[in-house]
Amino acid sequence: MTQKRALSIHPAARFGLVLLAVLAPLAAGQTPTGPEWWPSEWGADDERGAANRLTPAKVLEAVSLIEEGRIYELGRAYETGMPLFGNRHFSLTIPGLPTTDLGAENGVVFNDEMLSAEIGQVGTQFDGLGHLGTEVHGEHVFYNGFELSDFGTSYGLEKLGVENVGAIFTRGVLVDVARYKGVERLDPTYVITIDDIEGALDMAGVAIREGDAVLFHTGWGQLWMVDNETYGASEPGPGITAIKWLAEQGIVMTGADNYAVEAVPGENPERPIEGHQWLLNRHGIYNLENLDLSELAAERVYEFAFVFAPLKLKGATGSPGNPIAVR
Amino acid sequence: MTQKRALSIHPAARFGLVLLAVLAPLAAGQTPTGPEWWPSEWGADDERGAANRLTPAKVLEAVSLIEEGRIYELGRAYETGMPLFGNRHFSLTIPGLPTTDLGAENGVVFNDEMLSAEIGQVGTQFDGLGHLGTEVHGEHVFYNGFELSDFGTSYGLEKLGVENVGAIFTRGVLVDVARYKGVERLDPTYVITIDDIEGALDMAGVAIREGDAVLFHTGWGQLWMVDNETYGASEPGPGITAIKWLAEQGIVMTGADNYAVEAVPGENPERPIEGHQWLLNRHGIYNLENLDLSELAAERVYEFAFVFAPLKLKGATGSPGNPIAVR
Amino acid sequence: MTQKRALSIHPAARFGLVLLAVLAPLAAGQTPTGPEWWPSEWGADDERGAANRLTPAKVLEAVSLIEEGRIYELGRAYETGMPLFGNRHFSLTIPGLPTTDLGAENGVVFNDEMLSAEIGQVGTQFDGLGHLGTEVHGEHVFYNGFELSDFGTSYGLEKLGVENVGAIFTRGVLVDVARYKGVERLDPTYVITIDDIEGALDMAGVAIREGDAVLFHTGWGQLWMVDNETYGASEPGPGITAIKWLAEQGIVMTGADNYAVEAVPGENPERPIEGHQWLLNRHGIYNLENLDLSELAAERVYEFAFVFAPLKLKGATGSPGNPIAVR
Amino acid sequence: MTQKRALSIHPAARFGLVLLAVLAPLAAGQTPTGPEWWPSEWGADDERGAANRLTPAKVLEAVSLIEEGRIYELGRAYETGMPLFGNRHFSLTIPGLPTTDLGAENGVVFNDEMLSAEIGQVGTQFDGLGHLGTEVHGEHVFYNGFELSDFGTSYGLEKLGVENVGAIFTRGVLVDVARYKGVERLDPTYVITIDDIEGALDMAGVAIREGDAVLFHTGWGQLWMVDNETYGASEPGPGITAIKWLAEQGIVMTGADNYAVEAVPGENPERPIEGHQWLLNRHGIYNLENLDLSELAAERVYEFAFVFAPLKLKGATGSPGNPIAVR
Repeated sequence: MTQKRALSIHPAARFGLVLLAVLAPLAAGQTPTGPEWWPSEWGADDERGAANRLTPAKVLEAVSLIEEGRIYELGRAYETGMPLFGNRHFSLTIPGLPTTDLGAENGVVFNDEMLSAEIGQVGTQFDGLGHLGTEVHGEHVFYNGFELSDFGTSYGLEKLGVENVGAIFTRGVLVDVARYKGVERLDPTYVITIDDIEGALDMAGVAIREGDAVLFHTGWGQLWMVDNETYGASEPGPGITAIKWLAEQGIVMTGADNYAVEAVPGENPERPIEGHQWLLNRHGIYNLENLDLSELAAERVYEFAFVFAPLKLKGATGSPGNPIAVR
Repeated sequence: MTQKRALSIHPAARFGLVLLAVLAPLAAGQTPTGPEWWPSEWGADDERGAANRLTPAKVLEAVSLIEEGRIYELGRAYETGMPLFGNRHFSLTIPGLPTTDLGAENGVVFNDEMLSAEIGQVGTQFDGLGHLGTEVHGEHVFYNGFELSDFGTSYGLEKLGVENVGAIFTRGVLVDVARYKGVERLDPTYVITIDDIEGALDMAGVAIREGDAVLFHTGWGQLWMVDNETYGASEPGPGITAIKWLAEQGIVMTGADNYAVEAVPGENPERPIEGHQWLLNRHGIYNLENLDLSELAAERVYEFAFVFAPLKLKGATGSPGNPIAVR
Repeated sequence: MTQKRALSIHPAARFGLVLLAVLAPLAAGQTPTGPEWWPSEWGADDERGAANRLTPAKVLEAVSLIEEGRIYELGRAYETGMPLFGNRHFSLTIPGLPTTDLGAENGVVFNDEMLSAEIGQVGTQFDGLGHLGTEVHGEHVFYNGFELSDFGTSYGLEKLGVENVGAIFTRGVLVDVARYKGVERLDPTYVITIDDIEGALDMAGVAIREGDAVLFHTGWGQLWMVDNETYGASEPGPGITAIKWLAEQGIVMTGADNYAVEAVPGENPERPIEGHQWLLNRHGIYNLENLDLSELAAERVYEFAFVFAPLKLKGATGSPGNPIAVR
Repeated sequence: MTQKRALSIHPAARFGLVLLAVLAPLAAGQTPTGPEWWPSEWGADDERGAANRLTPAKVLEAVSLIEEGRIYELGRAYETGMPLFGNRHFSLTIPGLPTTDLGAENGVVFNDEMLSAEIGQVGTQFDGLGHLGTEVHGEHVFYNGFELSDFGTSYGLEKLGVENVGAIFTRGVLVDVARYKGVERLDPTYVITIDDIEGALDMAGVAIREGDAVLFHTGWGQLWMVDNETYGASEPGPGITAIKWLAEQGIVMTGADNYAVEAVPGENPERPIEGHQWLLNRHGIYNLENLDLSELAAERVYEFAFVFAPLKLKGATGSPGNPIAVR
């Protein structure tokens, strides 16, 4: 996401918001993104969202796509110099080299790695349902109406932690909009439309089904570690219109070769990252960002088994990962 | 592993080692664990070890075991209070709650998680080939004869980093020695023998094949977060004799519901963690530790597709993970 | 402080508070600790509190006490195994050993230390004015009425950061209540009274003056790294009554050889750490915790130059330190 | 220091070093910087080096310089965006905002700061004797001949840790070479000579005495947070010739408004940071880097009490700090 700042709001903007609050309070039952979205379709206690669509039958559907036994790793290397947004950081060191020498007759030594990072939100990252919320009447409201003031603690989230998701073993679909549009890489602020998605799917001869993981190839990933500044300044991706359509398909997850899946600045620059709200808050649909989809695209693999099991980081907002596609 | 200390050696022991070095130097071609083990069977440049046994055919073999579409998560939650060895630590905090408020009209806010931990060596952990080595003639020698002084840097390993492993999608076998021995949990220092393994396999009606991931159910995992002190003080597991036999089977990986797979203190307390040397250094065979195998054992699932893709932490010694078994 | 929990409130307690809020709201101008305490005596914009009492004249007064040139270090070593409260941690590692080898002809190598810790709130720690606040009408209100929702960001405080304090070079006074009471160590929950303070001062033949740093020797520090559990379970120290009296003296800072200066649980267990609120929130008076006062006490040094310059950690809530007494 | 790399040596350079080792081995008793420098003048066990010159008499000498009670803080703010060398990082976050809410009737809440950084080697930093060493006959040799392989552990140094230094309360001298040369800021690679130092001291009417802390004003600090790239690319400072002269004066410490005190690249680019070796290894003289000396220089304060007590970070290579000058 662009321009992430710890400072919530420019002072002038704050004043504007106060005015807004005074002059145009949200009506009861209304939120900044539309009507209240809770309770969820999976009940008022649900913490897994669209992961509930993952069933043994869906696993078997995915398995049926594996014909060659060929695996594509979609996760990027976590390394110093990778694009990082806002104040996030990544530090990995090896204490001691070796870290420990047991001094035993068998001469055994070993190394650890000391990591410091916003680990679920750097590099290839999976957004859990506790990552993103919406301010509604002064509360930060997340999936299923859970309020951050109730479930957030300094040492992890007591609800919606990424450990609730479980393994995602489902059918994956690659929507190669770059190829559909005949370009190597979509324009920096290109907003993918419903027509684009349908066109790319037609080109590929596949359709989106309920429970799928839908990955977008925009070509933006070509800039990773090559031109980080451009990579982070904006990105092509589906706009809020296309995202609403995606949510209607009952998918489990979106993913892309960019840093936020959806277009930045998107259809309405005043409403940044609105697609996240639509997916995560309203529909419990997950995002997987900073993927490497180049091999899938190059080999025109449009339908595959998609496998990713988030780390069970208790109370975390997201997870790093190395998702795979298998065909 | 127990009693990990940064201090390599007690001063008195140092003196002893010096004496040893003076009086009984290793013969050329000899190491503290036997003859030199390099170059590897996959060539003098290989960094992947037994992962080379993972082939499309092996993926298809694993896929053929998926009949129900049932997934078992084998990874434990990473959380404060979990057993940690030596000086390792785990700290996860959520800055800000929310971490960022964009102050936009759509009211979007989001959270990050700040993690500090020896991430590849806490909780469920996968030992890469850069984790463990053997002191040979004053050099710390790892898989394929690579010397730490050549490939180790303060900011990550330049060889044998866990990013080289790739996804492990293979046949998994559960060796339930606890059940075979008719106990809920093996004794604290029980050394699993070749006979035990063969007996447990016979009981299960399965055999180990080349390229398999072999998981041991010892029952020791019942102590996790219940009695951490006992959990870390020792552990039942295969001894060096059984590990040598395992290596001969050409497997890709061992795993267990304990913290080091192999028995601690093992067959010879003077040679701690010698099984790691045999597997990682000599054979490029990986270890996966602190697994939760209780469900697999309870449901008597002895043969399954095993899927785990280590995080591509560049230059890291290991990876956290949430491996899955699918049948 | 004891029982620090990230969970703000037990659900049942929350309900109680809601009831309380409904039935007995705080009157306008009232806070849970008495009348509103803002604006401060140093103006509505002030961020330094009692540090404003530090003047060149006070420096010269302190200097006049230096007759021998003898220095006492009051800071404890920061090390693994020291008492830590709540979820706080401390991890220090040396990457690489050496961290860097420049490979130049002069053979220069060097080491760094990688630290991860709640650095201003572990070990010897100085509480800045942004460390502690009071919930008033739903806002977290700090010194001078500043509200956390206005000045707090995920990456540091925009007001009251410890970088504002400046160097503390002032007269120090040791109040040795342990010796005054004729014990080596005060009882675990002993509440120091005004009489105790006046008695100890009389015994020492010194008086407290405006701008002083007042250090309490309770003997509790004898438990540091010896019996951490007891050390953290409670502590002797001044109660809220004595703290109010201290604040009236116009001091700059309190300090003690315990973890929170004030008695825990204190005069009213329902009002934990109330002395902090009185000092930090209402009077801008600082606390310095986990000091080693054993030498000062043993040598009966009751009046001295006290010198401590907090690290200018921008936006931090506190600072580690190694304060000194000089006579 | 420039071009810090985790990779010790470029492969080509390695080869060169091997050749060097073959063709021109160091003679016994020789090191890459001259004859062996151990045992130290304070005995073969000494770990404090020039800090041994700090005596009560020296404290009183410093105190005698305090006439006005005016304090100058010489430490810079530690903050995101400050210059960092090599792979070092700095991350400070506030968990929770507030971090903890005790849920008590007095409404007390508090914040911690979570820090991750190479804390003794970022921002204003004090180099302890365990920071830097010299490769001699394959060993990394530090002050007093201590070898890193003996005293270094992954979790801190067992000798020469910064906790041994103790408080530095001594006479400080400012050598304002920028003013002496009539410039606002010395040229990027200017090497300060003995004549420059003597000229600047004459201008100031002060002399260096044994036990002093000698601070260099180069004007380079004007670039801090203004042009970090230039700040880190090189720096003016004393060359090895001037540093040898400084060491002869029996001082305790050097300091400067640049990142390494000494000139970079210095008199011989093939021998980077050689002044550190001369000071730290051979003479136990400390360095204090990234100081803010602008006020001292502007007010032409050339002689003062200098006070700095390093954090007692056990086994650390250095310490952050906020040193002060008082006059």
